Amino acid sequence: MRVLGIDPGTAITGFSVLEKKGQGYEVITYGQITTDNKKSKNQRLLEIFQNISYLIEKYQPDEMAIEKLFFNKNITTAMSVSEARGVLIVSAMKNGLKVAEYTPLQVKQSVTGYGRASKKDVQHWIVNILNLEETPKPDDVADAIAIAICHINACG
Amino acid sequence: MRVLGIDPGTAITGFSVLEKKGQGYEVITYGQITTDNKKSKNQRLLEIFQNISYLIEKYQPDEMAIEKLFFNKNITTAMSVSEARGVLIVSAMKNGLKVAEYTPLQVKQSVTGYGRASKKDVQHWIVNILNLEETPKPDDVADAIAIAICHINACG
Repeated sequence: MRVLGIDPGTAITGFSVLEKKGQGYEVITYGQITTDNKKSKNQRLLEIFQNISYLIEKYQPDEMAIEKLFFNKNITTAMSVSEARGVLIVSAMKNGLKVAEYTPLQVKQSVTGYGRASKKDVQHWIVNILNLEETPKPDDVADAIAIAICHINACG
Repeated sequence: MRVLGIDPGTAITGFSVLEKKGQGYEVITYGQITTDNKKSKNQRLLEIFQNISYLIEKYQPDEMAIEKLFFNKNITTAMSVSEARGVLIVSAMKNGLKVAEYTPLQVKQSVTGYGRASKKDVQHWIVNILNLEETPKPDDVADAIAIAICHINACG
């Protein structure tokens, strides 16, 4: 099973492609889709759609695991991240991927064993679990890797 | 100029296609995209995407006018309607449509002359302005017609 992990955002969408390999994981790729904040919101949504479609075409994942929003924050931010989520999800659906959603708490729990782990803890465990040479940056990329691990663990 | 008016929602998305004609408007079509609440949220997003893409292909509008969310309500609802908005907007963008967004207040102001007009008032004016034989139902369809009128008025 090949999983596309996604940490959605209008400015930066982190992505990762991981595969279950025996009891472990194989890293296919990871990175970020960034959009220019000088462009209109809708132009940025289009760019997210085009880039995620390109990645799905290129890496042929079977499933998408995407972070669920958990907002006590700014409702304006919540609504614009939700628009990006809609775009990302529909791109997966139209390419026949299953889509799973996890809260940050579920992801932390799965990766570190502790639901209230810090971002640093999660990053430490990712590097460890995947034998990476350095910590993936920015946080959005690390989060996208963590959610793919979480999904592989859940479907394991 | 041919305008696709949209009142976004996960259960019902109202749509209208109107054209500016001299000092008036020509109604090309209107209706609703409904999705089945027994299906998953993501399946419903896919159906919205497929249906709006079909309508754009069929009616070839130049621009989309879509309602901006204005929420003091439930944040969960705001987030799911925003996902649907993202899907609708990206479908327009990828088909080369310009996308304009209006608040309910702007729409009411434009259609009735009064920003705090009731839904009934707006519906009364739509029927009047477009010489319709009956009030479009449900409200989502009437709202989709109103936003197309608003956009045609704004772009004069």
